[in-house]
Amino acid sequence: MATVSPGVKPTPERIFNTLSAFQQTAALKTAIELDIFTKIGEGASESSSLAKRIGASERGTRILCDYLTIFGFLAKEEERYALAQESAVFLDRRSPACLASLTGFLGSEIHKRNFDALTPAVRKGGTAAAQGDNTKPNDEMWVAFARSMGPLTVPSAMFIAGLLGATQKNACKILDIAAGHGMFGITIAKQNPNARVVALDWPAVLEVAKENARAAGVADRYATRAGSAFETDLGPDYDYVLLTNIFHHFDPARCETLMRRVHAALKPGGQAITLDFVPNEDRVSPATAAGFSMVMLAGTDSGDAYTFSEFEKMFGNAGFAKTTLHPIPEMPQRVLVSEK
Amino acid sequence: MATVSPGVKPTPERIFNTLSAFQQTAALKTAIELDIFTKIGEGASESSSLAKRIGASERGTRILCDYLTIFGFLAKEEERYALAQESAVFLDRRSPACLASLTGFLGSEIHKRNFDALTPAVRKGGTAAAQGDNTKPNDEMWVAFARSMGPLTVPSAMFIAGLLGATQKNACKILDIAAGHGMFGITIAKQNPNARVVALDWPAVLEVAKENARAAGVADRYATRAGSAFETDLGPDYDYVLLTNIFHHFDPARCETLMRRVHAALKPGGQAITLDFVPNEDRVSPATAAGFSMVMLAGTDSGDAYTFSEFEKMFGNAGFAKTTLHPIPEMPQRVLVSEK
Repeated sequence: MATVSPGVKPTPERIFNTLSAFQQTAALKTAIELDIFTKIGEGASESSSLAKRIGASERGTRILCDYLTIFGFLAKEEERYALAQESAVFLDRRSPACLASLTGFLGSEIHKRNFDALTPAVRKGGTAAAQGDNTKPNDEMWVAFARSMGPLTVPSAMFIAGLLGATQKNACKILDIAAGHGMFGITIAKQNPNARVVALDWPAVLEVAKENARAAGVADRYATRAGSAFETDLGPDYDYVLLTNIFHHFDPARCETLMRRVHAALKPGGQAITLDFVPNEDRVSPATAAGFSMVMLAGTDSGDAYTFSEFEKMFGNAGFAKTTLHPIPEMPQRVLVSEK
Repeated sequence: MATVSPGVKPTPERIFNTLSAFQQTAALKTAIELDIFTKIGEGASESSSLAKRIGASERGTRILCDYLTIFGFLAKEEERYALAQESAVFLDRRSPACLASLTGFLGSEIHKRNFDALTPAVRKGGTAAAQGDNTKPNDEMWVAFARSMGPLTVPSAMFIAGLLGATQKNACKILDIAAGHGMFGITIAKQNPNARVVALDWPAVLEVAKENARAAGVADRYATRAGSAFETDLGPDYDYVLLTNIFHHFDPARCETLMRRVHAALKPGGQAITLDFVPNEDRVSPATAAGFSMVMLAGTDSGDAYTFSEFEKMFGNAGFAKTTLHPIPEMPQRVLVSEK
């Protein structure tokens, strides 16, 4: 069966581009690694001067900058390069919104290995890499995550802090499960001086979260519990439990188990706050959220990007009668609020 | 320096997508490897039946098919998948225009290794892989090329055969330098029963070309010369010399050297026919041709995608007073015709 668009002659362009798409990842990683965006931002606009600043050949620099221009990261006029607006905001290390650290996780060897073994993963129905159940520590992966991904969470963390009315400064106790860099709990604690945060993660990962809490000046209201979210005593009487980017690692039964533990840890009227990629019911839109299933196939035993109706069912089985869905403006993830 | 678009708030979406682009390459390679497109074309339209046909898990099959739908290779309605038109034409192995073999070269380990070492390549100004001057045999690479890339050449080979007036059936002698799969010379020989082709390439590669010549029924007019285009005796009195996808591997001085040898091998009035990626003078358009420079940076010591004015200069130095440029409809490469 084929869908047909009459009068449109198909070309192999998309196939060709997709088979070459890995080159774009490599080029952007290299450009970030060589800090090309910062140097152009500082004024090194020709390949000769830029090459000197980054300690590279002029030929290599010219070809890389032309390539970055083709894909919209730079602009070129005559022989001079300039940063595209998004590169100035997100790739110049002098910018407060810089996301250059993302390459430490998104472009890491771990992800590459997972996708190198994608064919056996499709055959098997889960990762063909060594450790895919995410119930034991995996410091190489999760410390890299904690060290790299903090900056990307800013808009979502601000959104969640707003949703929780953090600026009203009501006393509250928050549990941040699988805290990673800790930025979700820390953002609330910064806005609300009466919020106390308990962060749960593997011991090596918690070191990163504690560093970030100290840097944010909230260390005195920042406690930690080391271990598995499925086994460690979570403690009682939380106003909020944050579950950011965690459910997608597990199958529905384990998600329910976790959410039951969350239900027990919340005080009556408390809320579980989930952040995740939530595709529409068709599972093929919106693109980023739906496409995230593939990352979970490649990297976990049985994780997935769950639809809202799947979340509703899992959370309902765990004791939460009602869950509401909140899109985050201009971000691919969504927030689910479930009240005890 | 940054270019500014007033009123447009930049988002990190393109950065995120580019750092994840390697996943698209992996997914398409896996889908081709598991022959998903052929099986859907044959009617296995649900993930359960399709999974059985390809010997894979239903979960893996469903996630892969959803992902292929997101990127336009499949369509999905309810739980049924169908081939997008370009997938039916180019990825279903039952289609005569199928390009599935491309993965054998474009998606090969060789290219991956080259791009894994892109940062040192930019520093050095040439490939950081072992062998980058392309003057010695590299059977792993070029036999893979010859076995994989034949189908992609059909439109260009037909275009060149038309340019040479092959259907007029005039007796002519053609030298096909770096013949690879041999499809450029073979296409002319099929259209013109009075054309005789001499193919030059490394010995192991010529075996593939000879196979293809036999399959096309032109073996009796198909001779070979094994060795380097820079050292092997090319022979005299050719009406046409084909130089398809060769100049981009070398620096301008070596391109000139090769073109001087071609000039000597042509009879007066004979033509050198070059097929290559020829970017505009700005070097950043059109995208595919300009972006090809990056493949040459990653994989060769000093190759490049040359502009028309660079080709004119090199070919002029080699003795060709005039070169004309011919775009190939709907293909990213162009043809240059240089008359002796």
